[in-house]
Amino acid sequence: MDKKILELAHKLQAKTVLRRRDFHQYAEAAWTEFRTASIVAETLEKLGYHVAVGEEVIAAAAMMGVPSAAEIKKEAERAIAQGANPKWVQKMQGGKTGIMATYVFGKPGPTVVLRFDMDANDVLEAAEDSHRPYRENFASINKGIMHACGHDGHTAIGLAVAEILSQIKDELKGSVKMIFQPAEEGVRGAKAMAAKGLVDDADYFLGMHLGFKAKKTGQLACNMKGFLATSKYDALFTGMPAHAGAAPETGKNALLAAAAAVLNLQAISRHSEGVSRINVGVMSAGTGRNVIPPNATIKFETRGLTTKINEYMAGEALRVIQGAALMQGVEVSVFEMGGAAACSNSSKLAQMTEKLAKRLKLFGEIMPECDFGASEDCSYFMERVQHQGGEAAYILVGTDLAAGHHDAHFDFDEAALELAVALISAAAADLLAFKN
Amino acid sequence: MDKKILELAHKLQAKTVLRRRDFHQYAEAAWTEFRTASIVAETLEKLGYHVAVGEEVIAAAAMMGVPSAAEIKKEAERAIAQGANPKWVQKMQGGKTGIMATYVFGKPGPTVVLRFDMDANDVLEAAEDSHRPYRENFASINKGIMHACGHDGHTAIGLAVAEILSQIKDELKGSVKMIFQPAEEGVRGAKAMAAKGLVDDADYFLGMHLGFKAKKTGQLACNMKGFLATSKYDALFTGMPAHAGAAPETGKNALLAAAAAVLNLQAISRHSEGVSRINVGVMSAGTGRNVIPPNATIKFETRGLTTKINEYMAGEALRVIQGAALMQGVEVSVFEMGGAAACSNSSKLAQMTEKLAKRLKLFGEIMPECDFGASEDCSYFMERVQHQGGEAAYILVGTDLAAGHHDAHFDFDEAALELAVALISAAAADLLAFKN
Amino acid sequence: MDKKILELAHKLQAKTVLRRRDFHQYAEAAWTEFRTASIVAETLEKLGYHVAVGEEVIAAAAMMGVPSAAEIKKEAERAIAQGANPKWVQKMQGGKTGIMATYVFGKPGPTVVLRFDMDANDVLEAAEDSHRPYRENFASINKGIMHACGHDGHTAIGLAVAEILSQIKDELKGSVKMIFQPAEEGVRGAKAMAAKGLVDDADYFLGMHLGFKAKKTGQLACNMKGFLATSKYDALFTGMPAHAGAAPETGKNALLAAAAAVLNLQAISRHSEGVSRINVGVMSAGTGRNVIPPNATIKFETRGLTTKINEYMAGEALRVIQGAALMQGVEVSVFEMGGAAACSNSSKLAQMTEKLAKRLKLFGEIMPECDFGASEDCSYFMERVQHQGGEAAYILVGTDLAAGHHDAHFDFDEAALELAVALISAAAADLLAFKN
Amino acid sequence: MDKKILELAHKLQAKTVLRRRDFHQYAEAAWTEFRTASIVAETLEKLGYHVAVGEEVIAAAAMMGVPSAAEIKKEAERAIAQGANPKWVQKMQGGKTGIMATYVFGKPGPTVVLRFDMDANDVLEAAEDSHRPYRENFASINKGIMHACGHDGHTAIGLAVAEILSQIKDELKGSVKMIFQPAEEGVRGAKAMAAKGLVDDADYFLGMHLGFKAKKTGQLACNMKGFLATSKYDALFTGMPAHAGAAPETGKNALLAAAAAVLNLQAISRHSEGVSRINVGVMSAGTGRNVIPPNATIKFETRGLTTKINEYMAGEALRVIQGAALMQGVEVSVFEMGGAAACSNSSKLAQMTEKLAKRLKLFGEIMPECDFGASEDCSYFMERVQHQGGEAAYILVGTDLAAGHHDAHFDFDEAALELAVALISAAAADLLAFKN
Repeated sequence: MDKKILELAHKLQAKTVLRRRDFHQYAEAAWTEFRTASIVAETLEKLGYHVAVGEEVIAAAAMMGVPSAAEIKKEAERAIAQGANPKWVQKMQGGKTGIMATYVFGKPGPTVVLRFDMDANDVLEAAEDSHRPYRENFASINKGIMHACGHDGHTAIGLAVAEILSQIKDELKGSVKMIFQPAEEGVRGAKAMAAKGLVDDADYFLGMHLGFKAKKTGQLACNMKGFLATSKYDALFTGMPAHAGAAPETGKNALLAAAAAVLNLQAISRHSEGVSRINVGVMSAGTGRNVIPPNATIKFETRGLTTKINEYMAGEALRVIQGAALMQGVEVSVFEMGGAAACSNSSKLAQMTEKLAKRLKLFGEIMPECDFGASEDCSYFMERVQHQGGEAAYILVGTDLAAGHHDAHFDFDEAALELAVALISAAAADLLAFKN
Repeated sequence: MDKKILELAHKLQAKTVLRRRDFHQYAEAAWTEFRTASIVAETLEKLGYHVAVGEEVIAAAAMMGVPSAAEIKKEAERAIAQGANPKWVQKMQGGKTGIMATYVFGKPGPTVVLRFDMDANDVLEAAEDSHRPYRENFASINKGIMHACGHDGHTAIGLAVAEILSQIKDELKGSVKMIFQPAEEGVRGAKAMAAKGLVDDADYFLGMHLGFKAKKTGQLACNMKGFLATSKYDALFTGMPAHAGAAPETGKNALLAAAAAVLNLQAISRHSEGVSRINVGVMSAGTGRNVIPPNATIKFETRGLTTKINEYMAGEALRVIQGAALMQGVEVSVFEMGGAAACSNSSKLAQMTEKLAKRLKLFGEIMPECDFGASEDCSYFMERVQHQGGEAAYILVGTDLAAGHHDAHFDFDEAALELAVALISAAAADLLAFKN
Repeated sequence: MDKKILELAHKLQAKTVLRRRDFHQYAEAAWTEFRTASIVAETLEKLGYHVAVGEEVIAAAAMMGVPSAAEIKKEAERAIAQGANPKWVQKMQGGKTGIMATYVFGKPGPTVVLRFDMDANDVLEAAEDSHRPYRENFASINKGIMHACGHDGHTAIGLAVAEILSQIKDELKGSVKMIFQPAEEGVRGAKAMAAKGLVDDADYFLGMHLGFKAKKTGQLACNMKGFLATSKYDALFTGMPAHAGAAPETGKNALLAAAAAVLNLQAISRHSEGVSRINVGVMSAGTGRNVIPPNATIKFETRGLTTKINEYMAGEALRVIQGAALMQGVEVSVFEMGGAAACSNSSKLAQMTEKLAKRLKLFGEIMPECDFGASEDCSYFMERVQHQGGEAAYILVGTDLAAGHHDAHFDFDEAALELAVALISAAAADLLAFKN
Repeated sequence: MDKKILELAHKLQAKTVLRRRDFHQYAEAAWTEFRTASIVAETLEKLGYHVAVGEEVIAAAAMMGVPSAAEIKKEAERAIAQGANPKWVQKMQGGKTGIMATYVFGKPGPTVVLRFDMDANDVLEAAEDSHRPYRENFASINKGIMHACGHDGHTAIGLAVAEILSQIKDELKGSVKMIFQPAEEGVRGAKAMAAKGLVDDADYFLGMHLGFKAKKTGQLACNMKGFLATSKYDALFTGMPAHAGAAPETGKNALLAAAAAVLNLQAISRHSEGVSRINVGVMSAGTGRNVIPPNATIKFETRGLTTKINEYMAGEALRVIQGAALMQGVEVSVFEMGGAAACSNSSKLAQMTEKLAKRLKLFGEIMPECDFGASEDCSYFMERVQHQGGEAAYILVGTDLAAGHHDAHFDFDEAALELAVALISAAAADLLAFKN
């Protein structure tokens, strides 16, 4: 079967590249991936998958960092104008652009979940000849939105894997669930899909990313650990304006409250059980130099090596903010804008994948234990799978990078797409093979 | 009558000086003036006054900045050992060392209240030959307590005035109330006496101070304004200790809460209606370098040109402190340690006193309008008198000063005692004179 | 002569209103008043005044809060497109849009300076029928720029006064200097004109404003005091970005520095000699939630009852900012964006104007002493005139207001224009009258 | 030889216990261990060691946290009164109470250094019958100073080891250096001895502590890692007093500077390479509620998993403090009060000791890898030995504890003394054995 899969991956590669470039050109940001998701849904339906979208796969209450209704409406219209099938867009109302496509094979067997993310970044793509997408005419036409993290590749890989599995379906048992997740950027989307219980019957779960710490085509990292738990918040302080010269005491100074919050947030104690982080990354406040500032917004995040440590940081932070507001007599509202759990790969599944990679001889370098040292909301799925007894892993498929992730010049070596398609298809096949 | 009063004052001067020196030698701090008060009570009783002390004149609930029960007990014993009559000390339990002595004259007429303060300062008196009290052997024998603000003189003046009024009683109508107040230092004592309603029937109220802005013998200031309202608070933050290296996150950092409070207290907005002030004068916190600090204390004060402004400052301050505690998850208790109202002299009474001073020809220089620019809890009495329609004034009787008030080398020209005795006696006599 | 002036003012009123509406429609912001200034220059030249503009009247080094060269260029082109004479625009390069027009009368006599300001506000004018400028088609066509403070009226008044004086020139001696100042908003323009020495030979100086505390047509305030000295600053903190999760210690946190600055700026001590103010009105910082913020900007202002108090506040503020930058190891640049001196009217000139107003019987209500309680950079001229022995005053000419100053619905009663023209012309005529 | 050493340790145990109790009774704090050190010096000299003390073994410039000259003098006199030999006290002038005793054996061989610490804590010993030292009459008679960390035991162990080695000297080669270090509490003493180069020729270095993480008699930890590097600082801010009501702007607020420092110290960024810590443990400031505070002191410490991380923390901290002082225009002086390097045991020596312990069968439980998670200035010696190629280890000898270290009820099971004496003697003998 290895050989068959490798051949199918190779045969599909041209189509995979075209798909990736199409997604790249019509880049769509978090919760507005209407065109991308429509194409995914349509393709998978044609392949015989049972496709669920919208409310069926997204818990509205758990969606984080969602754009305004007006923005979502505008983007849905834009997507239709750019070729999205209105039938699917209609089902994804309110930005519920997630998809789960299921294939139940003939015989009983395990459930394997594969997860891919689809959203682009808030980045203005470089318009220079040195930048291949620009030179070869597949740069984003949606200004200010760019696939600068490779999720266009992830989506294309997912479609190719789905096609391969559908072609070898007679040799498989159990079932496969293909999750295409929106809003990974800002770690906003996975929670709402996990909350729907989509992975609660998973025996195996596999997620993947191109590049990141595997910066060369031919590298592969299976033994991942150190996904930091994280929470993202916006805090809006609302005070009262007043003329700073004539009647300052009648104002309620929201800027001052935010400034006090910032200092005290950064001063939250270290945690003795492991890595913790806090950062107030953005602040804006005030209406004019001579007006007591009636408004202030801070955007911040906490992290922790464990979910417990992150909860400690977030708990402290929320109390600090309440205290800062009280000090100045202003109101404050805190919005959860994103989040991810802490986790590490299940070692058995990681080892199996590593062994498979060696068998397939596709990768020149299998990287040793790799500390992720960052956050990915794939962790919400993984945590849930591991919690109920399943195995979960997240792998990095190496690719030569033109520039770092989130850079306006980001691009990757498309040869890596074929490697990823082959490996993931083979992994699923191994887990679901009838003869195993 | 002027002449008679001037003669009596002159005749009493030697006794007045002796009394002042006796009080100076046995200096007693706020709420522990047991010996001083006992002598005052006994003297006035012998002069025929009706003397009320202790609970009769002090509202326990309104006492501020009271020493611990143990300290008060120790001081009461010390006072008895130094000659206080145990009968009086017994009546002043709990530090209620205030006195009101009343004399009702034969005919109906107005009520005149005269107020003197009795307490000494927490100052270690200079032990140098250049310092007269030391050189002439009447320096304080109570170590660390010193009459460095002239209240020894005020008490002696009050006793002489009481004696003069008792000797001219047949020429007077109405009644006189002599208030001897404890705990003016730290503005802690007047509120508890005013709260008893002692001055609520006053038609006229007169208070006085030696020196201050009238730094030369022969100066007199009657036209006083700008008593700043003030509040004095101690805030005690209580957190939780923890090893700063091994488990910092288990601590609750009281020092950090206090530091945040300090910055935000100082940052309370200016008030457009007039002078405001805030000062955190003292802070102490922590138990050891490597322990998350479980405790912190700050001592602070607010001021305002008007009571309204001071209330704004105090209100903001108390909220800032609650917010700072909340930020660090610590407890905080705030104690009111003192306070004074804002006020200004009633102009009619001030002018009358000025006119009288000119008539008596005792003072070489009558100062023009004088901005007090500080706080005195005499204001609590004055505010209450003015509120119910009476007239109140506070005068400064000039005296040559050896050093500034509250200095370890403070001393004054005792010749001023006679001038004060004569002026105040004459003022009371004018207001109460039968023939007027 | 009174009668003649009143008639001339009345005759000119229709033209004055038209001019005001023209300036209103082509509103121009600080340092870009190219069209307004060109019209003023041309008009005055035609009236026989000697007109100096650009470098002759503006000291480049003392200009504050000047837009970028690109913006100025764009605005100059816009002004020409809107009818400005390129000859004048050429002379006002770099935003030097100030004008001084001088008329030397036949006989020797005193020098009288009259000052008017020309700039509009950064306000988007209301587009509602209830707003007269919109309803009657003279609302600003320069989007986001609006005459919301009445300077359109001031300029029109200045032109009418100039015309009247030119018509009664044979009855006058000495000389008159008409100053048309740019950039009063943000108190940015007067300093650069005063620095040129324009008013150093002034015997009398008169400035004016419509409305403000004189909110009704027919009111007049001549006895002004309490112009607060003020300084306006922008501080730009520049740090170093870093990934907040992966390597926070390699960043230099500019937001944190700015937040610490804010708290400590607000905590600058009150001043015992009089009113002081500080306000950080605007802050913006950071590039993304998960990036150590490499940049922060705060916009703040200080004020003081006297120039000394304002200098204390500004001095403290600048040191606080340096300290805050040092704490975080970031760079900081501080830019002076505006300023005004403290001052009060010369009482003789104020009284003279009041007396004249009564004589002319134009105003129903002469207001008593009026505390300005705000800042105006006219004070730079006034201070300079008073310093060298001249007399200076600033008057408020009342007018019914449709909304407060700086409001998008601001409008005033144009009847007040005639009153102002008559009063100011008569004041100048009185001071310069040959027969006096 | 094992057997001989075990017998000697057993035979010495009674004397070891007596010595421990004697040191306990005459507890001496850091840099004032005159009596303890005199006894050590005298004992070792009698045993035939070459004894160096005072300037020979302490680099004055590297001494940290030294008491005042007056205090040291007083303590030296106290020590002599309590039996210290004045000859030795004389040599230890200025608090240089360290000792190095050397024995050079007959044949060439390696140099082994053994290190013990001698100082007590600033703790008031419990005076309760439940506390054995009190009950059995060996509680500290030096009020406020108590051996609450077991250094009394360490010193007694060192003397016993020295005696054993002297008795088996004919079977040994090379040389042994016994270091008795003052001022381990506050990590103040080792640096000054290491700076003298005392351990620069060491092939092996062994340090030890009773209890700590080995809380039961019979436990032993040899495989120690994670000694946190640390720095201890005092910062003294000096401003200018002023009356908080009358002239606040003339003050320089040291308390405010310290408060700002505290917040910003706690806000120093986490380090991505490992554990970091900061704690401001103590603050005291101000002279009176109504005085702008002219003085403030903070006591703080930084820590890091590596010396590099601690240096980052300390560097940031020192800059924050300079910035805070600059913000308020106050002066600041920073004093280094203590410090320790980061380090871990040399694994070969740790393993050798573990093996030996098993061979001797003295310990019931050899603990696995043990994370120290705290600071010990023994690290200065260890770092220096390891740097020049030697091996260094620090072991924990378990003992039942009556209460935690630094507690007023601290006491330990003296049976552990014999175990420690035997193990350390045997370790030295193994390393120096002639026949090995």
